[in-house]
This record gives sequence, C-alpha cells and structure tokens, in this order.
Amino acid sequence: MAKQKKTAITPTREADYPEWYQQVIKAADLAELSPVRGCMVVKPWGWGIWENMQRVLDGKFKETGHENAYFPLFIPMSYLEKEAEHVEGFAKECAVVTHHRLEPDPEGGLRPAGKLDEPLIVRPTSETIIGEMYARWVQSYRDLPILINQWANVVRWELRPRMFLRTAEFLWQEGHTAHATEAEAREETEQMLHVYADFAENYMAMPVIRGEKTAAERFPGAVSTLTIEAMMQDRKALQSGTSHFLGQNFSKAQGIKFQNQTGDEEFAWTTSWGVSTRLIGALIMTHSDDDGLVLPPRLAPAHVVVLPIYRSDEERQKVLAYCEKLKQELEAQSYGGEPVRVRMDDRDLRGGEKNWQHIKKGVPLRAEVGPRDIENNSVFLARRDTGEKVGIPRNELLGTVGDILGEIQDGLFQRALELREQNTRTIDNLDEFREYFTPKKANKPEIHGGFALCYFVDEDPAVEAELKKLKVTARCIPLDQDGESGQCLFTGKPTTTRAVFAKAY
Amino acid sequence: MAKQKKTAITPTREADYPEWYQQVIKAADLAELSPVRGCMVVKPWGWGIWENMQRVLDGKFKETGHENAYFPLFIPMSYLEKEAEHVEGFAKECAVVTHHRLEPDPEGGLRPAGKLDEPLIVRPTSETIIGEMYARWVQSYRDLPILINQWANVVRWELRPRMFLRTAEFLWQEGHTAHATEAEAREETEQMLHVYADFAENYMAMPVIRGEKTAAERFPGAVSTLTIEAMMQDRKALQSGTSHFLGQNFSKAQGIKFQNQTGDEEFAWTTSWGVSTRLIGALIMTHSDDDGLVLPPRLAPAHVVVLPIYRSDEERQKVLAYCEKLKQELEAQSYGGEPVRVRMDDRDLRGGEKNWQHIKKGVPLRAEVGPRDIENNSVFLARRDTGEKVGIPRNELLGTVGDILGEIQDGLFQRALELREQNTRTIDNLDEFREYFTPKKANKPEIHGGFALCYFVDEDPAVEAELKKLKVTARCIPLDQDGESGQCLFTGKPTTTRAVFAKAY
Ligand SMILES: [Zn+2]
Ligand SMILES: [Zn+2]
Repeated sequence: MAKQKKTAITPTREADYPEWYQQVIKAADLAELSPVRGCMVVKPWGWGIWENMQRVLDGKFKETGHENAYFPLFIPMSYLEKEAEHVEGFAKECAVVTHHRLEPDPEGGLRPAGKLDEPLIVRPTSETIIGEMYARWVQSYRDLPILINQWANVVRWELRPRMFLRTAEFLWQEGHTAHATEAEAREETEQMLHVYADFAENYMAMPVIRGEKTAAERFPGAVSTLTIEAMMQDRKALQSGTSHFLGQNFSKAQGIKFQNQTGDEEFAWTTSWGVSTRLIGALIMTHSDDDGLVLPPRLAPAHVVVLPIYRSDEERQKVLAYCEKLKQELEAQSYGGEPVRVRMDDRDLRGGEKNWQHIKKGVPLRAEVGPRDIENNSVFLARRDTGEKVGIPRNELLGTVGDILGEIQDGLFQRALELREQNTRTIDNLDEFREYFTPKKANKPEIHGGFALCYFVDEDPAVEAELKKLKVTARCIPLDQDGESGQCLFTGKPTTTRAVFAKAY
Repeated sequence: MAKQKKTAITPTREADYPEWYQQVIKAADLAELSPVRGCMVVKPWGWGIWENMQRVLDGKFKETGHENAYFPLFIPMSYLEKEAEHVEGFAKECAVVTHHRLEPDPEGGLRPAGKLDEPLIVRPTSETIIGEMYARWVQSYRDLPILINQWANVVRWELRPRMFLRTAEFLWQEGHTAHATEAEAREETEQMLHVYADFAENYMAMPVIRGEKTAAERFPGAVSTLTIEAMMQDRKALQSGTSHFLGQNFSKAQGIKFQNQTGDEEFAWTTSWGVSTRLIGALIMTHSDDDGLVLPPRLAPAHVVVLPIYRSDEERQKVLAYCEKLKQELEAQSYGGEPVRVRMDDRDLRGGEKNWQHIKKGVPLRAEVGPRDIENNSVFLARRDTGEKVGIPRNELLGTVGDILGEIQDGLFQRALELREQNTRTIDNLDEFREYFTPKKANKPEIHGGFALCYFVDEDPAVEAELKKLKVTARCIPLDQDGESGQCLFTGKPTTTRAVFAKAY
C-alpha cells in the first residue's frame, strides 16, 4: 500500500469532509465560533475576502441602477403577522427583544427591566419593514421604480451553527425593489440572478446553475424564487444566491399602492434578492484542498506574499531592501483592472513555518527571495493552485504577474467545472436515482452522488416524502432546458423540463 | 422694516435652529424616522454621504496598520457585569433579547417563546465581547499589538431620538487595540485622535478642537478619553469622535494577559476609538443654510448635477445628447485624486422645481444647459456655497472644475473657522461666564453663547452643579495650551490649563 502523502489539513476531504471544512477555516485563520451561541467572529483574513466580495457586488448593483440605503435592525412583532406565509417561514427562528433596560438584581447581578409594549424582532430579512417605508414613499407611478439595496446583519436563530454556512447572525445584502408593472419586476428578478451568476463564475471561479426553485423550496411569500446552485467538492449543492419575484403579495399586505398613468390605483410589484457571507463557505468548499484554503485571485485579500529568506543580520538588511522594492514594483502592476495586492511577511519566524501559513491561507502566489536569488536577479515563485515552483527572472515576473493570476483564476474555474460535469448525471429511472443518492457505507457515508437531472412535474406533494428519505432536495429547475420531452421521474406525467436534484447544504 | 428674503427652509436657523435642522434633513431627503421607536431610515442621499465617510476613514485606518474584522451583535448579559464603570455607563439604555422564537397566541397573533437561559444584549459598544476574544488570542508578546477595527450597528435605547445625533440604532466604526506597553497604547490613542481630526478638517471642512475629556465626561471604564469638538452654527459643541486609553481596566476585567520577553505575565494595555453616523449630523449643522443642505465636495455623493433645459421635443433630443457628453467629459476630470462625480437629472419635472431640489440637497455645482448655451458652447454654472451664478465656456469648466471644487471645500472650512473664532471667548470671571451662557429670552432662547476658554482644575465635584444649572459642560481640555498660568474659574486654584466650556449636543 502506498504511503499517504502528508497534508497540512487533517482530516483530508476524502476522510471527513465536514471536519476538513472546519479545519481549513481554522488553519487559514478565517473565523471562529464566539462565546455567543451560534454567532461567529470573522477574523481579518476572512473579512478581507468579504470586503472584496462587497466591493465587486456593490459596483454591479450600482451599474444596474441601484442605490444603497439603511433600514432599522428591529421589526415590530405585529409586522410579521401581516404576510401569512412569510411569518410561517421566519417566526420560528428569531431573536426577540422584550426589554430596554438592565437593572441590578438582588444577587448583585443584572436583570432585564423596562418591558416593551410590543416586542421587537431582530430582522431575519427586511421585506416587512422596508415594505412599510415603500408604502409611505410611493403615491404615483412617477415614484416607481424604487431600486434600493441594503448591506446589513440579520439574525435567524440556529441550533446547529456551521461557520459561514449557517450562523445565528450573518452579514448579507438585500435588494428590495418596487415596480409599476409585473413585466418590469420579473425582468429585475432575472437581471439580479444574472448579476449573481456572473459574480459567482467570474470572481468566485465557481460555476453555477441558474434556475427556478420548486414550490417546496420557494422563499416564504414569493411567487417565484430564482437561484444559483453550485456543486461543492463533496458533490453536495450549495444555494449561493436567490432573487425573488414577490408579485403583489407583499405590496398588498403592506399597502404599497400607486396611481397609474390613467389615474387608477394599483398595487406595486416587488422583488427582493440577496447573497450573504455564506458565499465565503461556498468559496472555501469549491477550491480548497488538503493543504488548506485556495483563493481565486479576484477575491484574494493578497495576490502575492513576498517572503525574505536570510541567515545573518547582514543578509537580512540586503534581502529586506530588495524585497521592499520588489513589493513596490509588483504593486505597480495590475490584475483585473486593479493594482496587484502584495504583502511582505518579514516576521521573525522560521521560513518553513511562514511558508506553510501562507499555503494554508491560500495566497495565490508566494515569492521567496534569498541572497542567491538577488545575485541572479530572480525570484523563487510558488503557485498555490498547482503547487508548481519555479525560479523566474525578476523582470519576467513583473511583466507576467497579471497573466499568471489570470491563469490561476481560469484554472480554478475549469477545475470546478470539470468536477461538476463528472458528477452530474441524467437519470430517468427511480431505482438508479435511489442508488445514486445512497452511500455504500451507511454509518460513515463516503462522498457520493452529485447532481441528478430528472424530468419533473412540480405538483405532487408525495414526492417530498420520497426525497426526504434520501435526504435529497430539488435544487432548481434550470433556466436552460434542451426542450426534449419525457416523463416525470416520480409521477410519470409528461413534461419537457428537468430539475436538478442533489443533497445540499 | 426690510422684507425677509424668502428661503427654501422654514423656519430659518435664526428663528428655530432645532426645527431648521429637522427640515433640512427632510428637504435634502437624507433620512426619516421609522415606525420603530427611536430608529431611523437613512435614505440613499444620506447613505451616499456615509459611504464616502466610510471609504475615506477606512483608507486611513488601513494606512495606520489596522485591519477590519467582525464580532457578534449580541453580548451575554454577564459580560456587562464584569467591568463595573462600564456597565454603569451602558446598562441603562440597551435592547435586551430574552426569547428566540415566536409562537401563535390565543388571539391569532404572535407571542415570544423559547426563553433564553441568559439574556443577550444588543451591543451598545463592543469592548466586552471583543476583549473576550482578545483574551483567547493573546498569549505572548509576539501576539501583540492587535490592531482591529469593526464597522457595525450598535443600539443604545433613546427616549428622545434626534436624527443622526441620537438614535436608538446607529452605525459606527469601533477600533479596538491591545498593546504590550502603556506608551504604545497611549501613542495609538493619540494617533487615532489625529486621524479623526484630519478627517474632520480636511474632508468634512469642519474645524475641531483636539482635547482630553474631564473626569465627568470620560468614557465609562476609560483612564483617559481624547475627543474632537466642533462648533455648530447655533454655537453649541458637538463631540465628533473619541479615542479612549483604557489602561489595563478592561484587560484585567477580561483576562487579556501575555507573557513578556522576560517570561513574566502582564496584562495588555488597550484602546478603543470610534466615530458614527452622528458625523452626518455634524456635517449638516456646520455648513447648511436657510436654503437647505450644503455639502463639502470631498464627501458629496455628487459634485456636479447637469440640468438639461428645453421646451420642445426637438430641443430635448439635442440638449440631452449635449448634456450626456458634458457629463462624460466632466467625469474624466479629477478632484481630490478621484474622478469628478456627476449626475444628470433628466427627469420630466419643471426646471425651477428640479433646480431647488438640488439646492436643498446641497450639490456643490449645478450646470444648466439649454439650446442657447449649446450655441455658445457654454454652461450656466451655479455654486451652492456662495449662490454665485456665471456663464462659463465649456472648455473652461472642464479645465477648472477640480479647482472650483477645491475652492468650495476651502471656503466652507474658512467660513466655519471664522464662526468659531467669532464665538470663542476667554473668560476669567464667573459672572461673565454665567452671562455668556444665559439667553436673553428664557422662554424661547435665541442663539447665544459659544465656546468659553477658562482656567480649570478638574477636581471639585461641586463644579458640576454650577455647570448643570447653566446647561453647560466642560467639552475638553485642549491639547494645545499657551502655558500661561491663572486661577481655576470655579475654585480659584492655580493652574496652567484652560478647558473649553459650551452647551452641547
Ligand atoms: Zn422576507
Ligand atoms: Zn465599552
């Protein structure tokens, strides 16, 4: 038996994928669980990724005509009673503020005081409070559309938190728009789905399937929910962004009415759309390997880390000066329309340890420079994605660093796309479907299954029971369909649409 | 009697300053109160100012070696019990989460359910939760300093909310640092005060006095609080940013310990510093006039608004095309190292109404273009700060727009500085002090007083009663002192330091 290659992360993906995920987060110093149940602390390296995500997305939102605003953290409890499906979907898992003061208790501690007349809910999402404001702002068709986005924290109580994927508090953006016509609102819903898909594929290097959610998976209160779904390396699906067409459901519940051009009163058509810090979880699980985090350059807080190597104080001075200059020269280059982001790590640590820290953090390029490299005017360059290491003349590095980063970005996308293609199967037989989603080892399931593309008629609630047994969900009905016809895998009813089924986060 | 000039804002500053403030916010569409008691909605124009403030400050924090991170919204109640002064300062005014679920009540509504074992406090500030994490992260002197900032929302219950100045929820940044030595922590505290002062003066065009808070006005739990204080147009002071040297108070309460270079255990020295959306209130009250908001260009969401003027469809087409080109040409110019920010307002509204909207919103420059201007290849340019209107050749505008914006920025600073200088008085006599701070009309006080510079020995608690009667506070002990000696205004004790006294927000 071949000896296992030593890896920086224990366990490996193959051995225990969920635990590998936690260990990558720890090794890359991205985040940790806090003493507040279900809440995490996002550390600087993790927050740096989120800042890059925010900057890119915010630019795309503004390009498509949206403005940012900010609405209250708290929602009066009565607001959640207005839209029946919506409250059903959110009321079960929220933080309830009931008091507005603390006072000393008899044991020398503190206790809540100042009971509120009406409890306040920490927003799990803001449709209701934002809708209330829109109802005030909209009188005439001239006031429409309203195209607003909010960057905010939201809270959904979680009993089984999982960093980035499912935490009580998380960070997100939520777009909320109101329109005079159904067509315009539907167009907005689709536009934002494509914004998300473009971001996922071109910045996160994560291929996604664009589709519509089935009735069972729809956002509470929505008429239609569009989604982008990505495949993680354990072949499970991760919903990475959703865009909801809310019809007139919320505008009727909240009274968002306007006088149209002929003087009649109508209800507005609304949408909402969001992505969250969950995307960081998706990023980790799409690209990272058994040595830790792998970052697509477009979102990496640093593109290159410069690592000075020296043994004596004399060498140190010379090497540091050379490295500082190299850093500046690299920063003068550009990648993706922005300056190359360079850090120098001159901490007083053993070279090997330092090197491994940056491997685990997923920095795309490491540039080692020692006295011999300086003599040759070259740099020892290591790529995080392929592990490739080469000596490269300094000038060549400066001339090609942008191209190399581009290659890495493209390579990561291709690798993820191949994984998905290898693990996507067209299935027209229920037995095959069951087998596909059943692990060989029931006790400690191995990585198995993937995406199953099956004809599907979204009608029969009995299907849910079958799926639940297998722990599979319909992820979406892809917008791209080949138009051929067949029979629903579960009911036999004729149809021309396939849905994607998978186990999911 | 001369007829009053008609103003866009009613009442004027002179007539009723607090109400004028509310009306400016409304007229400029910056924000409004929400149905959630004490919470406001920041609308896109107001949020645009905050985004600019954030971008500039964030750049300065990073330049000075800080990184961003994110900590939980909730703080366990027991954490507030740890630092005695701190809880005293914050426990009285906080939002308390006691339940984590809603369930149907017998009347068909909802009620809180799922009582928490320990109540959670929505953060009023994050020293305690961040300190808890630092205690985990710090073991050795090698782990120090920690230089972290957080952009976040915080909640302090307010019974008398005032938009931007005092709302239950507000947005801010809070820096939290931990150091191995007292000297380094004190240096950090001062450095951040100067970052704030630089931002206030060079971006907000708002002159500030840098000083130290007296004992009575110190942050709860701090050893020393540094502050920048600005004078509003009603001559009241507004505390605009604070930087706290916390000594070892919090590190002892929270156990932030490290092994120093000689192997002994020591407590870390910590600081915290913050500015908030309150700065938007300061900006409004420093520069705005009786026609509405006036914005310093460095922070204006738009520098120039282009206003096409036409009467027929034929004219419309021609004017819009010309304006679109002008917009692009202006955007190719730069101001303050960034592209000039230009908006075109081609809404189908009467020209006069449109024009007044942009006056009230404080856009620094309005560029009107009609058919006759196109013939002359010129633009009718109006300045918001001076009200000046001139015809200017298009090429001249393109060549000088950055300079004009720079002039406006400088002019606003000078105007604010003059106001402060005219209303700052050295007072060495208690009767004069009392008279200075007593309005002539007791029922409806006119704008009066200003800053009083008085010798002061910060010792005698009896002084507080005298000040309270006058509704005056010691704003700070300025860092710059002339070194002359005198006697404390209140106690007669000899001293070489003067304090600034004022009525304040
Ligand atoms: Zn919702
Ligand atoms: Zn505090």
